Amino acid sequence: MLDKISYKEAFVRCIDNVKPTDLYKSIYVENALGEFLAEDIIAKRDAPVFSNSAMDGFGFKKSENKKLKVIKTIYAGDKYEDFEIKDNECVRIMTGAKVPSGIDTVIPIEKCKEVNENYIVIPEIKKGANIRLKGEEISKGEILIKKGEEITPEIVALLSSQGIVNVKVFIKPKIAILSTGNELKEPFEAADAEEIYNVNSYAIKALLEKNNFKADIIGIIPDSLEETIKFIQNLKNKYDVIITSGGISFGDADFIYEAFLKNSLKEFFRGIMVKPGRPTMVGMMKNSLVFALPGNPLSSYLNAFALLIPTLRKISGAREYFYNYVYAKNKTEFKTNPKKDHTILGKFECGEWEVFKNYKYGSSMLTALSNSNSLVITGKREKIEKEILKVIPFDIGFCVESNFFND
Amino acid sequence: MLDKISYKEAFVRCIDNVKPTDLYKSIYVENALGEFLAEDIIAKRDAPVFSNSAMDGFGFKKSENKKLKVIKTIYAGDKYEDFEIKDNECVRIMTGAKVPSGIDTVIPIEKCKEVNENYIVIPEIKKGANIRLKGEEISKGEILIKKGEEITPEIVALLSSQGIVNVKVFIKPKIAILSTGNELKEPFEAADAEEIYNVNSYAIKALLEKNNFKADIIGIIPDSLEETIKFIQNLKNKYDVIITSGGISFGDADFIYEAFLKNSLKEFFRGIMVKPGRPTMVGMMKNSLVFALPGNPLSSYLNAFALLIPTLRKISGAREYFYNYVYAKNKTEFKTNPKKDHTILGKFECGEWEVFKNYKYGSSMLTALSNSNSLVITGKREKIEKEILKVIPFDIGFCVESNFFND
Repeated sequence: MLDKISYKEAFVRCIDNVKPTDLYKSIYVENALGEFLAEDIIAKRDAPVFSNSAMDGFGFKKSENKKLKVIKTIYAGDKYEDFEIKDNECVRIMTGAKVPSGIDTVIPIEKCKEVNENYIVIPEIKKGANIRLKGEEISKGEILIKKGEEITPEIVALLSSQGIVNVKVFIKPKIAILSTGNELKEPFEAADAEEIYNVNSYAIKALLEKNNFKADIIGIIPDSLEETIKFIQNLKNKYDVIITSGGISFGDADFIYEAFLKNSLKEFFRGIMVKPGRPTMVGMMKNSLVFALPGNPLSSYLNAFALLIPTLRKISGAREYFYNYVYAKNKTEFKTNPKKDHTILGKFECGEWEVFKNYKYGSSMLTALSNSNSLVITGKREKIEKEILKVIPFDIGFCVESNFFND
Repeated sequence: MLDKISYKEAFVRCIDNVKPTDLYKSIYVENALGEFLAEDIIAKRDAPVFSNSAMDGFGFKKSENKKLKVIKTIYAGDKYEDFEIKDNECVRIMTGAKVPSGIDTVIPIEKCKEVNENYIVIPEIKKGANIRLKGEEISKGEILIKKGEEITPEIVALLSSQGIVNVKVFIKPKIAILSTGNELKEPFEAADAEEIYNVNSYAIKALLEKNNFKADIIGIIPDSLEETIKFIQNLKNKYDVIITSGGISFGDADFIYEAFLKNSLKEFFRGIMVKPGRPTMVGMMKNSLVFALPGNPLSSYLNAFALLIPTLRKISGAREYFYNYVYAKNKTEFKTNPKKDHTILGKFECGEWEVFKNYKYGSSMLTALSNSNSLVITGKREKIEKEILKVIPFDIGFCVESNFFND
């Protein structure tokens, strides 16, 4: 019989039973989007590297003097010998230009009372205004970014500002995707009216790709137990992760499970009390993680999203691998089977969430997937009311129209 | 003087003044993640393609008979001549296997009262249970996916199920990224203690890449007006979009603006009443969109995120180009300048949002960016209370720990 563990328990068993890699490589930042840092990033320089003006304006040493002689113009990038400025002097200075050490305040041109070629007249202004002090943001030597952090464009900005162009990142797992079932045709093959296509391999590969994992589609598992045992044995020496779909429930043709056992698979679980997606098995086969997903494309995709992706992130050394969620108001009430957990598809838009077709879609309906942008995972409940739900968006994404301003 | 339009007005002018492309190309679905469909996708086949069993079990024609003789076993993928089943007969049938036309109901093995090699005994069961009817989800010929839709893994799943491996997508704009300022070193160059790095080009390129746009980093604009005019003239014939940073406010060295005007730039606006990010100009130069972002890396990045990305999506034929947002509770009160709109960085996690460093960071502080995961755009307000805010996450992302279950 299949296990009857909860979805939460399945998630915990996936996460708790895998270990992060310690293999890393060196990579150019330019190619590192979506990789996970295998080192703390230490600041190579102060930020700002020198005290500089935050505005185009006039820099001076704060004093009682209100009429100041303009003695020099300093542009961003100008290099010059440091000099001492007098109380009745100022420099014209551009945004980002280095401030001579005597100067402690900058006034923007539009705030001056009078501006001439040779002098300016200024109002009262706070000492220290419009100057950015050396090291006020970052001190050389401090930890800037933690090991395990994902490299995002925001991180690229920070790395670039430090002149860091090469970083150590964890090596991502080598992933194989298999599918089962003689009946399947590949999407690029001709299929007669009664043949169906291999959806899972391609959908899961795309999902992995979006999450910055690469995978090889190995093909369809052979249709005999003996051959399957050999086939899997061969793969486990070559791949860190083996993803299959179909074949682990109790139909006669489902001998994948047996082939895994013969290859000494140690299960984390086999079977989750969830709709859809019950026939799912996860375990380790020597050093390879096995994710045996359901044959049904919808179930398979949802478990890949909710269970596989976080597990792969942990294996890959990511610091963060629990899905972030948003709160959203459920627009329509619907019933669920109280004996099961549920992974439910719907549309999240601007703070509201609506279940797809009143939760009356089947676990083979891919239109439920293509028309949804988010997942709601529920416990054993009889119905979901017009309540505030925790929603996991596939992607924060865009919509046809929205007012995202806080007026 | 710079314009004083609101951030909303700036957004509207960007969006309203650009037109979607009508250029498209043919592409393999495998390589199409993040592309926008240039055609409606029409269903090539019914889904399901044939009526089939939703369970492993026994298929029969619903009648008064409760003891049924097992006459045949049908596996998924089996091809056979259709046959008529009698009231006292049934077939063993696997999930996904084609159901002979007489059969209208399937019972899973575990619901049978008795199961033998030759016969089964069944309880009362609803006619039509556990069968998926031909075409119940998709009818051949209907529109499955609309033109302009972004190709996501969920769309890949649907396309694969239809055996669609090649689609028409809009051609994305050719994008050039320039920067200004003699003072800048590229991150891969040696810089002395007083030199600063070109952050903008690399940060914006990474942001574009994450949003599935490619760009060429052209380099640093020459430091004379005449050369800049020529340089820009040359680019406008080669690129659909030209992104610059720095050089359009009123510092003496800021002659980019002039160079654009000399190349017949038609402004949508020059200047936004926003903090940070005021010196921003957007317009068309013949057929090239010009996005002149501020020189400050933080301002530049935020305007690229909030204004440029949606505009590029519209140009590229996307159906959706307004940011989706989430509601989140603001954790700490902070003040804003009521004369300006604000784009404010912070951390969104599990329904709550917290501004970075009490909104006391400067517009050059990249740690504000690297430590945040979302943006809040406010109107001219004096303070932001502990209220529910509209937040635009950079990414829905992951966190160190979260309970995303609706128990």
